Amino acid sequence: MPVLHHHTASTASRFVRICFHEMDFAAELSEELPWEKRPEFLRINPAGTLPVLETDNGHALCGPHIIAEWLDESFGVFKRDRRLLAEDPFRRAEIRRLVEWFLIKFEQDVARPLVHERIVKLMKPSGSGDNAPDPKMLRTGRANIRQHMKYLSWLAGSRPWLAGERLSYADLAAAAALSVMDYLGEIDWNAFPQAKDWYQRLKSRPSFRPILADRIRNLPPVAHYADLDF
Amino acid sequence: MPVLHHHTASTASRFVRICFHEMDFAAELSEELPWEKRPEFLRINPAGTLPVLETDNGHALCGPHIIAEWLDESFGVFKRDRRLLAEDPFRRAEIRRLVEWFLIKFEQDVARPLVHERIVKLMKPSGSGDNAPDPKMLRTGRANIRQHMKYLSWLAGSRPWLAGERLSYADLAAAAALSVMDYLGEIDWNAFPQAKDWYQRLKSRPSFRPILADRIRNLPPVAHYADLDF
Repeated sequence: MPVLHHHTASTASRFVRICFHEMDFAAELSEELPWEKRPEFLRINPAGTLPVLETDNGHALCGPHIIAEWLDESFGVFKRDRRLLAEDPFRRAEIRRLVEWFLIKFEQDVARPLVHERIVKLMKPSGSGDNAPDPKMLRTGRANIRQHMKYLSWLAGSRPWLAGERLSYADLAAAAALSVMDYLGEIDWNAFPQAKDWYQRLKSRPSFRPILADRIRNLPPVAHYADLDF
Repeated sequence: MPVLHHHTASTASRFVRICFHEMDFAAELSEELPWEKRPEFLRINPAGTLPVLETDNGHALCGPHIIAEWLDESFGVFKRDRRLLAEDPFRRAEIRRLVEWFLIKFEQDVARPLVHERIVKLMKPSGSGDNAPDPKMLRTGRANIRQHMKYLSWLAGSRPWLAGERLSYADLAAAAALSVMDYLGEIDWNAFPQAKDWYQRLKSRPSFRPILADRIRNLPPVAHYADLDF
């Protein structure tokens, strides 16, 4: 069976896990702590980033975009109305723009600072001298999250799904990003009802169940994390 | 005619310009200084990043990956042996992995620190209090460049082109990244003969001529920059 190297707190890993479920693609999960820079893992992906899919025929597909494109090329055309990329080149471009937005821009502005300060530091051996969150980084991440939530609300309020008429990779990338922040209790849902309504629809999908069952060691989620009527 | 919003010192912009030339796709160039965050530009691409292609039918394609995928989907299949993406999904994944390597990882590790310290600061109004390069950032970028050159040399020495048997987007992304660093005189070519041999082949292509004619205001390139026998 193919193996997906992933981490629970990695947005990109969650995105790929949800895509696999939506596409009925089965893979075994193998947890990787990328900050440990394990030599065996760096041999598979010299960039040291997650997720990585090792296929049955010995290929390593590195990174969420690459796995998503490969998944669509290999199985997408047979999925008809469950396909996660559009047919039209301009609609494909809009889906990819939003995937990049949530996997790269949101990651840089919001997820990386908050995950690093609140999760990675917690997981590093205590006594390594670097276990306390930096208040300045937390403030930056939290200020940025509001800007991203405004944009997401605008998208969710003006289109049935984020990139248009149909569920696409764009929704799954955004929902993966939000799910990590929601685990940490960093989202003020009451301030963004349109985003909340959209996220509720995503959260109710069977592909989201494993994500809602995720637990990070020594860090329980906020009370409403797995609640479908939050 | 389509308009490409670009900047001379932006690796991603150079990559797309070279792709357009290789694919015989004509676009007008419009220079953008992304750090100025012009409201008109942010309306076209809210992420504020380069390059952006405005098409004749009013679409805005944002980002190098998205433009490259669209270009291949729209015109690639007619190019036969000049196509810049492979047919096989696993070869496509390897090409995309290397494009991401040079447009994202190389950018973060090398190009962004060096371009920011040596070019962006130079272009900001003097007296803004932030015009002197930070020696620590320069050291970091220069230490990282050697690691990337080793990896590039290994790839160039073990395959005819970076991603395999044929010229692909991977070569164009890597050459675009190197061309910006070479302009600044940051590459020690004598230490990496295999990379040099590969870059010489890229540099000799007609698609590279406009890149070699690029000049950044108030910052002339190193003497060998446009020399095909450097």
